[in-house]
Amino acid sequence: MTARPPDIIRSAFVELVVTDLDAARWFYVDVLGLLVTAEQPDALYLRAFEEYLHHSLVLRRGDTPALARMGYRVRGPGEVDAAQRYYSRLGAPVHRVPPGATRGIGAAVRVQDPLGFPVEFFYDAEHVERCTQHYHLHRGNAPTRLDHFNVMVPDVEAAHAYYAGLGFGVSETIEDDEQNLYAAWMFRKPTVHDIALTGGDGPRLHHIAFATGERAQVLHTCDVLGALHEEARIERGPGRHGVSNAFYLYLRDPDGHRIEIYTSDYYTGDPDNPTVRWNVTDNRRRSFWGHEVAPSWYTEASTVLGTDGTPVPTTPPPVREAERAGGTGVEVVAVGADGFSVATGGGCSEGFELGHQT
Amino acid sequence: MTARPPDIIRSAFVELVVTDLDAARWFYVDVLGLLVTAEQPDALYLRAFEEYLHHSLVLRRGDTPALARMGYRVRGPGEVDAAQRYYSRLGAPVHRVPPGATRGIGAAVRVQDPLGFPVEFFYDAEHVERCTQHYHLHRGNAPTRLDHFNVMVPDVEAAHAYYAGLGFGVSETIEDDEQNLYAAWMFRKPTVHDIALTGGDGPRLHHIAFATGERAQVLHTCDVLGALHEEARIERGPGRHGVSNAFYLYLRDPDGHRIEIYTSDYYTGDPDNPTVRWNVTDNRRRSFWGHEVAPSWYTEASTVLGTDGTPVPTTPPPVREAERAGGTGVEVVAVGADGFSVATGGGCSEGFELGHQT
Amino acid sequence: MTARPPDIIRSAFVELVVTDLDAARWFYVDVLGLLVTAEQPDALYLRAFEEYLHHSLVLRRGDTPALARMGYRVRGPGEVDAAQRYYSRLGAPVHRVPPGATRGIGAAVRVQDPLGFPVEFFYDAEHVERCTQHYHLHRGNAPTRLDHFNVMVPDVEAAHAYYAGLGFGVSETIEDDEQNLYAAWMFRKPTVHDIALTGGDGPRLHHIAFATGERAQVLHTCDVLGALHEEARIERGPGRHGVSNAFYLYLRDPDGHRIEIYTSDYYTGDPDNPTVRWNVTDNRRRSFWGHEVAPSWYTEASTVLGTDGTPVPTTPPPVREAERAGGTGVEVVAVGADGFSVATGGGCSEGFELGHQT
Amino acid sequence: MTARPPDIIRSAFVELVVTDLDAARWFYVDVLGLLVTAEQPDALYLRAFEEYLHHSLVLRRGDTPALARMGYRVRGPGEVDAAQRYYSRLGAPVHRVPPGATRGIGAAVRVQDPLGFPVEFFYDAEHVERCTQHYHLHRGNAPTRLDHFNVMVPDVEAAHAYYAGLGFGVSETIEDDEQNLYAAWMFRKPTVHDIALTGGDGPRLHHIAFATGERAQVLHTCDVLGALHEEARIERGPGRHGVSNAFYLYLRDPDGHRIEIYTSDYYTGDPDNPTVRWNVTDNRRRSFWGHEVAPSWYTEASTVLGTDGTPVPTTPPPVREAERAGGTGVEVVAVGADGFSVATGGGCSEGFELGHQT
Repeated sequence: MTARPPDIIRSAFVELVVTDLDAARWFYVDVLGLLVTAEQPDALYLRAFEEYLHHSLVLRRGDTPALARMGYRVRGPGEVDAAQRYYSRLGAPVHRVPPGATRGIGAAVRVQDPLGFPVEFFYDAEHVERCTQHYHLHRGNAPTRLDHFNVMVPDVEAAHAYYAGLGFGVSETIEDDEQNLYAAWMFRKPTVHDIALTGGDGPRLHHIAFATGERAQVLHTCDVLGALHEEARIERGPGRHGVSNAFYLYLRDPDGHRIEIYTSDYYTGDPDNPTVRWNVTDNRRRSFWGHEVAPSWYTEASTVLGTDGTPVPTTPPPVREAERAGGTGVEVVAVGADGFSVATGGGCSEGFELGHQT
Repeated sequence: MTARPPDIIRSAFVELVVTDLDAARWFYVDVLGLLVTAEQPDALYLRAFEEYLHHSLVLRRGDTPALARMGYRVRGPGEVDAAQRYYSRLGAPVHRVPPGATRGIGAAVRVQDPLGFPVEFFYDAEHVERCTQHYHLHRGNAPTRLDHFNVMVPDVEAAHAYYAGLGFGVSETIEDDEQNLYAAWMFRKPTVHDIALTGGDGPRLHHIAFATGERAQVLHTCDVLGALHEEARIERGPGRHGVSNAFYLYLRDPDGHRIEIYTSDYYTGDPDNPTVRWNVTDNRRRSFWGHEVAPSWYTEASTVLGTDGTPVPTTPPPVREAERAGGTGVEVVAVGADGFSVATGGGCSEGFELGHQT
Repeated sequence: MTARPPDIIRSAFVELVVTDLDAARWFYVDVLGLLVTAEQPDALYLRAFEEYLHHSLVLRRGDTPALARMGYRVRGPGEVDAAQRYYSRLGAPVHRVPPGATRGIGAAVRVQDPLGFPVEFFYDAEHVERCTQHYHLHRGNAPTRLDHFNVMVPDVEAAHAYYAGLGFGVSETIEDDEQNLYAAWMFRKPTVHDIALTGGDGPRLHHIAFATGERAQVLHTCDVLGALHEEARIERGPGRHGVSNAFYLYLRDPDGHRIEIYTSDYYTGDPDNPTVRWNVTDNRRRSFWGHEVAPSWYTEASTVLGTDGTPVPTTPPPVREAERAGGTGVEVVAVGADGFSVATGGGCSEGFELGHQT
Repeated sequence: MTARPPDIIRSAFVELVVTDLDAARWFYVDVLGLLVTAEQPDALYLRAFEEYLHHSLVLRRGDTPALARMGYRVRGPGEVDAAQRYYSRLGAPVHRVPPGATRGIGAAVRVQDPLGFPVEFFYDAEHVERCTQHYHLHRGNAPTRLDHFNVMVPDVEAAHAYYAGLGFGVSETIEDDEQNLYAAWMFRKPTVHDIALTGGDGPRLHHIAFATGERAQVLHTCDVLGALHEEARIERGPGRHGVSNAFYLYLRDPDGHRIEIYTSDYYTGDPDNPTVRWNVTDNRRRSFWGHEVAPSWYTEASTVLGTDGTPVPTTPPPVREAERAGGTGVEVVAVGADGFSVATGGGCSEGFELGHQT
């Protein structure tokens, strides 16, 4: 017997474990320009300029960098109950927590979802000032709001099925000629995504993304990092994704968590919004401008914590049957946040193709 | 007995009557950069770069400039039936039209709504290519999508009640200290608005707005008009609205229809999205930068056609009781697209304050 | 007998008298984003991000707002001597001052030029850090350098002849059909201007302009002022000048001094650079977008101080013979920073046409 | 006995040999947005929007892609004679050509300069319309003017000495701790450069650069190329150079000639403009954002033609004494447009470090 899924509005916050709160504050507040809602000895609660809920990012001090929690907002208090029923029926670990278990957040349900991620569902949250027009506080790169999560999973098709079951639409995919799914962008709010599912050792968090208003603000972040001789934090970009049409920049925070600054995706809210299906051989999917991608962007991602607070072990992607090259002994597996493939085995030690164009 | 309202997704298209199709084509295609989906001897069907439905703007040749129809898209074919029932119960004129009655649009219901506007509800529509990434076709000011309608009505409170009954949320308002409502921005899709209701002789169409990606694209439109010595088409802006935070530009097409180019509003999709209430005395509501407004922007608007194709007579706003200045004989009425007030009567013939800051 | 003029490089600094240093600091440092080179109890020395000389703006506390000095840099120490000889031969008041008379500036010559302005010529100056790439210090509107002075003079033709004698080129003019000169833009460095000469009661300083990199930085200044509810400091713009092609914004500082933020003019350095001659009847000269101009922009300007530190009396423009409307008794005189005309006399008390398009 | 050098104003035009004029026209006119001044069966004459001389780029059909000529404009007709005398005294091949030898260009002197490059000096040139404000003709990436040449030479110090002798200033350099010069940016007009000298097999043309107004225009060029699936023409960027502060993009035309689109350098016109000296070990010199550089950008460049129209043989850079690693047999030579070093010899076949950060 099943229960209906909760009515999710959107991706709403993440809690990251960082090892040095001062360093994290420098990165997220001084460089990225997020606003501080609250500060505790062991945690910082941050939000972007258009956000009026208490926070969209919690930074919590800990010994090992990790994703502690992804928060989805649901449409009302009753939907928190719906989430509790839904995950209980799925047999997932489910914990009801009282208001304030996460500061600023009301009654919530925490689960380890079937993909292995720690997820919190909530509706009630403390309102704070929306600072959209506080331009005197805007640095040159003021982020407007949290936009999405991007996660690595060993089985993209299974993850897609799970999120489809939660009522997420699919805006874009990367597929091969046999309709094997390499990556999927899925949404509740009518943008390109609230969650992106990409193949690789998982469960891991590939990145979270903050939206910003214009491309110049993304460029300014690069200039600030160069000025501070912290240009090594720029892992990829700025550039244009074929997928989503986003103008992007990927940074690594002092603990290695990956943050995307993101602008210019599009409205997806009509029921017949066409799914854009990119072929895995079209390199413009990942860089519309043909840019090579740093190997780290494909291989590195953040550990996720289970409901007991310990790291969730990862599983590698299965070998894709369709990609076995019969007789050669070469196996090809899909990894990476845009469905990039690597060849392994078969004595082909230099077969590692990361960062090169197909 | 009532019927539930149709589930409206968003403002989707308008049909404007223009007297010279060649002149209109020059303005909308050559200057604004809209794409031509289809062309007939007496009509042009246009869309913006991210739109995949057949059109968001129909220009139809006729003898007198007017708004022929505002189109709302509903969530499915059954919602067209719901619209038919809803407006029948309201006692409004309702006509069911077959697919193709508007080219590219499926089965639809046309009504004259209680505010006097000609409205079409539809779900089915022909899909055409979404040109988001056809950057080689982008002029410097490529519009992305139709964003909203702005209409003038003699009774804003009544119009607000009607749209609230249709399930529209309220993102922002202009009010006075007695909570009299001067203007309201209301939405179904999670942006600031699908429809703005502003006080004045009505029913009339104040403007339609196309969204664009960045402010530089708005500025480029101004430069193009200056280069062509058509700068007189710029009626107002560019500037920043306090209401909606939009960066705006208002143009007049060759028939006098007003078109806004619009960028940078914000997400409103959560159920508890706070309504921003601007006081009618804060001039930043209309221009965050303190700009004066051309009187024409307050007084001129497009005639709307009834279901019989003839102009709908307009009604002036009632004198607002709260604004009567007892004993002076001066009456103040609210007019204009942002709740601007004018004083009339009392022998004060030059009391017309349009375009001046309170 | 004449002496050759000094070899002037460019407009280099101004000294403004302000009545409240704290208020001025707020405006120039907090809002405009200039850098502080030095601070004294009675003076602030500021520069823009690409400047490596000690300052381009001195704010000095005094009882009455005024222009105390315009500084031109010459090509070497010997040219300071050349300036001394040149102005002595002209019979102008000339004072040699030692290094440090203006902090950060070396040996200099101060004159009251034939137009009545207090001018300083210098070469030696203290070098400080050029902060071009200190992006972490850039606010959203970082100015790059002082660009030009704009002054009001009663006789534009005479002022033009004086500056031509100093070796300034003419990039653009406003003229009527009889080649009467209403305004002239003149340069030494190869931009559109170092000095603009515009008709009106003079000598007065109309404005100084700082260049910035992109138009978005100009817009950000507007947004910051709106956010602080200081939008009344925006007197004109943003907009595009026909003359110079500049994207402009005019602000008034707390003492009423006018500051332009300016971007996108063009290279004028070849000897045959064509002079652009705008007809005084083409309204695009002042606003390429057809914007009306606030009357204050035409009538208000800063008092200038003589070499004795007292205000220089102003002279109105002569009545232009060519504009006398024979028999009507109406006289037309040229005033304003772009050659705008006003009709006076003839019993036409409301004939004041400022701010309206011809 | 020596002659004084000609008074050069600026880098003014190049003539490139291309193998397919239609393909070249597509690239330079349809994609980059240059204006066509004149067209012949075997040649195209192009200019940017702010240019009023006949052309800044000549594309001439030929069998082998090459640089046919670099044009410097001098300050007057007499300076053409000065050029003739100067190069004659240097013993360089010098040819006087009549007006029209290059269409649109007056009397000129053509030389093979001591570095091996074909150079033309001219003053007189046909004036055509300056299209600065023809915004209706601007595509999204309208270039404003030719900005500079960048050439590869085997001996940067010798090339620097030659250009210093021509009166060029030095705005920026790349040096090592022993003041060995790896690259130099030199100017006559007061921008960062008219010519950049970079180490490598030479004489070869590394690239020519067109300036544009804002960064968004550079990004638009990338988007257009992606839309046309011609993203492989993007060789490097967009990004920020540490040297010059320019926001850059490097493209390869259909014949492999490299074109830079360039914005936001700075004023260098004062006599004491400080030279910025970048250390060769600071990777921000080439990419302020830490971007890796494609190896082709270091190794590939255009052949140059001699005065007889045949390719000039190239010479490799000498081994730099200071870089010999005593005893290891490894020799290090400087190559590349920003002084990048490669190790060769010593049996270290994989020692090629192009494109990796030091």
